[in-house]
Amino acid sequence: MNPIKIGLVGAGTVGGGVIKLLAEKLPFFNNECGLPISLARIADKATARFKDLPVENAICSADAYDVVKDPEIQIVIELIGGTTFARKLILDALKAKKHVVTANKALLAEYGPEIFEAAEKNGVSVYFEASVGGGIPVIKTIREAMIGNNIISLKTIINGTCNYILTQMTEKGLPFDAILKQAQKRGYAEEDPTLDIGGGDSGHKLAIMASLIFSGYVPFSKISIEGITNIAKEDIAFAADMGYCIKLLGVLKRSENDSSIDARVHPAMLPKGHILASVSNVFNAVLLQGDAVGSILLYGRGAGELPTATAVISDIVDASRNIACAMPQRIPMNSYRHDRELSIKSIDTVISRYYLCFWVADKPKVLASIATVLGNWGISIASVRQRESESVARVPVVIISHHAMEKNVRQALSEIEAMDFVKQTTHVIRIED
Amino acid sequence: MNPIKIGLVGAGTVGGGVIKLLAEKLPFFNNECGLPISLARIADKATARFKDLPVENAICSADAYDVVKDPEIQIVIELIGGTTFARKLILDALKAKKHVVTANKALLAEYGPEIFEAAEKNGVSVYFEASVGGGIPVIKTIREAMIGNNIISLKTIINGTCNYILTQMTEKGLPFDAILKQAQKRGYAEEDPTLDIGGGDSGHKLAIMASLIFSGYVPFSKISIEGITNIAKEDIAFAADMGYCIKLLGVLKRSENDSSIDARVHPAMLPKGHILASVSNVFNAVLLQGDAVGSILLYGRGAGELPTATAVISDIVDASRNIACAMPQRIPMNSYRHDRELSIKSIDTVISRYYLCFWVADKPKVLASIATVLGNWGISIASVRQRESESVARVPVVIISHHAMEKNVRQALSEIEAMDFVKQTTHVIRIED
Repeated sequence: MNPIKIGLVGAGTVGGGVIKLLAEKLPFFNNECGLPISLARIADKATARFKDLPVENAICSADAYDVVKDPEIQIVIELIGGTTFARKLILDALKAKKHVVTANKALLAEYGPEIFEAAEKNGVSVYFEASVGGGIPVIKTIREAMIGNNIISLKTIINGTCNYILTQMTEKGLPFDAILKQAQKRGYAEEDPTLDIGGGDSGHKLAIMASLIFSGYVPFSKISIEGITNIAKEDIAFAADMGYCIKLLGVLKRSENDSSIDARVHPAMLPKGHILASVSNVFNAVLLQGDAVGSILLYGRGAGELPTATAVISDIVDASRNIACAMPQRIPMNSYRHDRELSIKSIDTVISRYYLCFWVADKPKVLASIATVLGNWGISIASVRQRESESVARVPVVIISHHAMEKNVRQALSEIEAMDFVKQTTHVIRIED
Repeated sequence: MNPIKIGLVGAGTVGGGVIKLLAEKLPFFNNECGLPISLARIADKATARFKDLPVENAICSADAYDVVKDPEIQIVIELIGGTTFARKLILDALKAKKHVVTANKALLAEYGPEIFEAAEKNGVSVYFEASVGGGIPVIKTIREAMIGNNIISLKTIINGTCNYILTQMTEKGLPFDAILKQAQKRGYAEEDPTLDIGGGDSGHKLAIMASLIFSGYVPFSKISIEGITNIAKEDIAFAADMGYCIKLLGVLKRSENDSSIDARVHPAMLPKGHILASVSNVFNAVLLQGDAVGSILLYGRGAGELPTATAVISDIVDASRNIACAMPQRIPMNSYRHDRELSIKSIDTVISRYYLCFWVADKPKVLASIATVLGNWGISIASVRQRESESVARVPVVIISHHAMEKNVRQALSEIEAMDFVKQTTHVIRIED
C-alpha cells in the first residue's frame, strides 16, 4: 500500500493531543494494521508550541498553507477553529482534492452546505466525529451502527461548561454568576463564555446531528436556542423539591404529521430518575431513540485534549481506510445532504409541560388572576406551590402545567406580566420526560 | 457496482427481525446509498415461519446448505445459534469464501480461533456486532472509535435476564426463585435459564470483548464465572442498607505488572451513585476506560428481535462496503488474533473489597472468632453489622472488608465455616467501584 501522508493545522489543545496520540499509535497502525500513515506536516502560527510536542518526523512551519499546498498530503486535519480562516483553509484543501478531518462544529453548523458541496465536487470527504461530543462516538453511531433504524428522537447534554455550571449550582446552592466564576478559574469555562452559556455551542452540535439523522441540512440559524444565564438558584431548588433536575438539553424529534423537525436547545427539567439526570459536571451524553433498537445512550467526556483527539484519530483511520480502497465516505452511511434544506418546526407550536415561576406581590387574589389567564389560554394547571420568600416584597408562585402549546404559554405570560402584582420576569422552563 | 447477494439462515426471533428491517431498508441502501444489496436466499427448518415474514424476493427453503452452496451468495448471515450445526455451517461458508455475519456469542467464545483462522485462510471476514449487547454498538466502538486508545478496563452488565432478576429482587424484596418464575412467564428468561443465570452467557460476551480489547484470544474456559443463583434477598437488602446495589458484572482489566488479564464474571456490589447502578431491568451497559478518552458508557437493549437485528444490519452494511472495495475487515481495526492466546490472571490473586455475610448462632464470642481468623489472613475489616433475624437459630453478621486477596479470603472462610457456630454457607460478594 502507498504511504498516506497527513498534515495537521493547529497545534493547540486538541492538535497537541492528536500529535501525542499519533506519536504513540502510528507504529501500531503501520505495523499491525497495515496502514502506512505518517504525520508529514504540522503548521501553527505559534511555532513555540512545537518544542513541547513529539514532532520529530514532521516538517513544522507557521504557515497553514504549507500543509494545503504540499501535493503529497492526502488528509488535512483542521484544528484551528473559527469560521473565517478555517473556512477558507478547508475549502482550499478540498479544492486541492485533500480529505479533511475537522473538529470545527461552528464551521460545519454555519457553512455546512458550502463545505460538503465542495467536498462532493472534488470527490473527497469531510470527517467530523470530533465536532460533536469529544470522544463519544456519536457520529459513527448515527451513521453506521443505526443505519438500519429511523432515528425518531434525540435528547442530549452536549455542552460540558453548562452541565458543570448547572451541576455545581445544584450541589452548592449558589447562583449562576458565582459558579461561572469558579468554572472559569478551573478551566471549565472560557474567558468569554457566551457561546457555551448562551446555548450556541449546543446548537451547533445539534445542527450537525440533525442534518445526519434527518438526511438533509438543518440550518443552525433556524434552531431555537436558549441558554442557561437566566436559571436562578431558586429554580434549581424548586425543581429539586419536586423531584426534578435542570439540564441544558438539545432536543430533536421527527414530527408525526408533517415533515418539519422539532429542533431546539433550552434548559429543561428532567425527572431525577431519568437516565440523563445522572449525567453530571463536564460529562456529555446523547440519548438516541431508534424505531427498531429503542433507546441507546452514549456517555463520556465531550471535550478536552485527549478525548477530542481520540475522535480525530478514529476519523484519520477511517479516512485512511477509505483512501486505501478508494471508497467515498458518503456511501453508504446516513449523510449530510447539502442540497436538501429541512424545515424546522416553529418553537411556537412546540407542545410541552411547563414550569412557571412567577414572582409576585404577597396579596390576595394574585393566584386567582394568574390561574384565570392561564385558563383563558387553555393552559391546565397540574400543580401549584406558593413558596415562602426571604423578601416580603415578592414571593414565588410555582405552577406546573399540563401539556400546553408554547405560543399560548407566551401569550398568557405577556398578559400576566402586564399586571401590577408581578414583580419580576417569570421564569419558564420546559419539562421533558 | 455489482449486486451483493446475501443469504440468511435461521428465521427465528432475530432472523425474523433482520428480514423485516431489510425489507424496509433495502430500497434506501440500493437507491440512496449506492449499495445494491439483495436478500436472495433464506433457509429455516421451520418453513412455516416464512409465511409471516416479507420474504417475497428471496428463495426460501428448509436446507441451510441451499444458502451456503449457492455460488452467488457473498454474505451468509448465521442466526441459528448453538455450537454444533452452526459451527459446521460457518466453517463451510468460510471455506466457500463467503463472508459471515453472526450473532452467535457461544460459538465465537468457544471456537473463535478455529473460526477466525478459517476466515483468514479463505480471505473473508466474520462480522459479529450482534454477538455482544444486541443493538448497542460495542464492537464498533472498541474496534473503530477507540482505535487511538489503549483500553485499560471494562465493566459491563451484559445479560438482560440476570439484570432483570436482580432489579426485580431489589424492587420487590422477593427471593430469586419467585422472580425467576415471573421472568420466565414474561419471556425475560428461557425455560432452561442455566446459561443466563449461571453467568455463562455473560462470560461468552466477555471473552469476545476481551479478545478484541487485548488483541489476542481469551479462552472462554479460563474466565472465572459465577452466576446469580446464590444471591439471597437478604444480601440485596443488606447491600441497599449500606448504599449499594448488586449487579452481575463482567470485568476486564489490563494488569499493571504482568501481561495477564483480569477477566471475570460475578455478582458485584456497586455504590448506588455508580453510573452502572442506574442500569435496570433488561437493559445492558458497557463502561469502557480508555487511556486517552477516559470513561465511555454505552447503554441500550442487549437482546430482542429488533435491537439485535439492528446490529446485524449494521454488519451487513459494513460487510457490503468492504466487499464493494475489497477491503479486508481486519485492517486496520483492533482484531481478534486467533494465533495469540492471552493468559488470564487466576481469580485467586484478584484483589478486591468484599461483602461477607455469615449466618451464625446467636451466642457470645462468635464475632470475635470470625474477626480473629480474618485478621490472621491479613483481611482488615472496614465495617461490621450484626443484623436482627426472623429466626433465633441463625443471625446474619455482615462484614465489609478493606482490599484483600481472593485466596486469603477463601482460606479464611474455609477456617470459619468449619466452626460449629456457622449455620449456613457464607455469602461472598466482591465490591467494585
